Amino acid sequence: MELYTWNTPNGQKPMLMLEEIGAEYTIVPIDITAGAQDEAAFRQINPNGKIPAMRDSDLVIFESGAILLHLAERSGRFLPEDPSARMTALSWSFWQVGGLGPMAGQWGHFTRREERNPYAEKRYLDETLRLFGVLEQALDGKDWLAGGSYSIADMMAWPWVSGIFDIFAANGDKWAEDYPVVNRWCEAIATREATIRALEKLKRAVED
Amino acid sequence: MELYTWNTPNGQKPMLMLEEIGAEYTIVPIDITAGAQDEAAFRQINPNGKIPAMRDSDLVIFESGAILLHLAERSGRFLPEDPSARMTALSWSFWQVGGLGPMAGQWGHFTRREERNPYAEKRYLDETLRLFGVLEQALDGKDWLAGGSYSIADMMAWPWVSGIFDIFAANGDKWAEDYPVVNRWCEAIATREATIRALEKLKRAVED
Repeated sequence: MELYTWNTPNGQKPMLMLEEIGAEYTIVPIDITAGAQDEAAFRQINPNGKIPAMRDSDLVIFESGAILLHLAERSGRFLPEDPSARMTALSWSFWQVGGLGPMAGQWGHFTRREERNPYAEKRYLDETLRLFGVLEQALDGKDWLAGGSYSIADMMAWPWVSGIFDIFAANGDKWAEDYPVVNRWCEAIATREATIRALEKLKRAVED
Repeated sequence: MELYTWNTPNGQKPMLMLEEIGAEYTIVPIDITAGAQDEAAFRQINPNGKIPAMRDSDLVIFESGAILLHLAERSGRFLPEDPSARMTALSWSFWQVGGLGPMAGQWGHFTRREERNPYAEKRYLDETLRLFGVLEQALDGKDWLAGGSYSIADMMAWPWVSGIFDIFAANGDKWAEDYPVVNRWCEAIATREATIRALEKLKRAVED
């Protein structure tokens, strides 16, 4: 398997899963700071020109959600077998892809620009915090999004939550303190051996 | 099965699929113009307070992508069995959820506001048109996103593409003319009997 990725929240997701299942794979770094995602070779893998993407024998897969679903099906792990818990995991996976990722991503975009855009910054911060609130309630009284076991839903959400919490901390913003349950869940994922290995390998791959 | 929905692009997606597979279901209209998505009863179905959501016996499902995947697995239809075509369908489904939906949605938001925000309007229009371009290339030389057969990937993308094309037309904007292949695909879906039934039933349900 070849994983085409870079060290971004979406690029971290498949790494978490690959390390959890102990897969054999190669990281192909796609340097998005140098526009490598627009090169013809990569467009053959993902016509949308975004990381992550993956090749697994004759399967070509793009979008982190599709990659994690494939790896769950291939390994038989991290997607509950129980139909109800499985649909819960899939619902939260799509929630991350369609909500938390793009909305937090827009907040990141507008806050990184030099020119201020107060309406847009407030819009995306408000929505990101609302989504953290949804997560806070969803995780209250259980360890993981799909219930009793760690799943792809947690791996999808974690890089975005921990990434945004890190930005808040770096800026001295205290918003993360409003989500104690999310913080506990975040820490539980951050300290998993597979997570630590995943982030180290990814960091090394993009620095090479 | 109960489908909790409203007449929006995301709310149309499960309708297309339900009518394609000839399912027995009840539409529960959630009037988002009156804030019904925030009522406690609906929050029990979808803690994120967004339509569509679904109940199928003891399964509770939210997010259109999860609903369509469930209906494909339940019916054994509209998700190719061939592993490669299946992953293609799933990749494009996630592409729609994470890209076309949120980006076109942001464009809709900013163009509907009275106060202009030229940077944000241009940002989201540019990205929406870029995504249409990706679709134009992806569909070139084939009938459907996953190849030879109509799938959930097409049903996910169609309501957003046709909805945005309709807005362009209503405003006298000619952008849609740049995507002849997408137009042909759009028309092929719009004229399917299941699509026609789906849109009529949904319109009737929200008007009741």
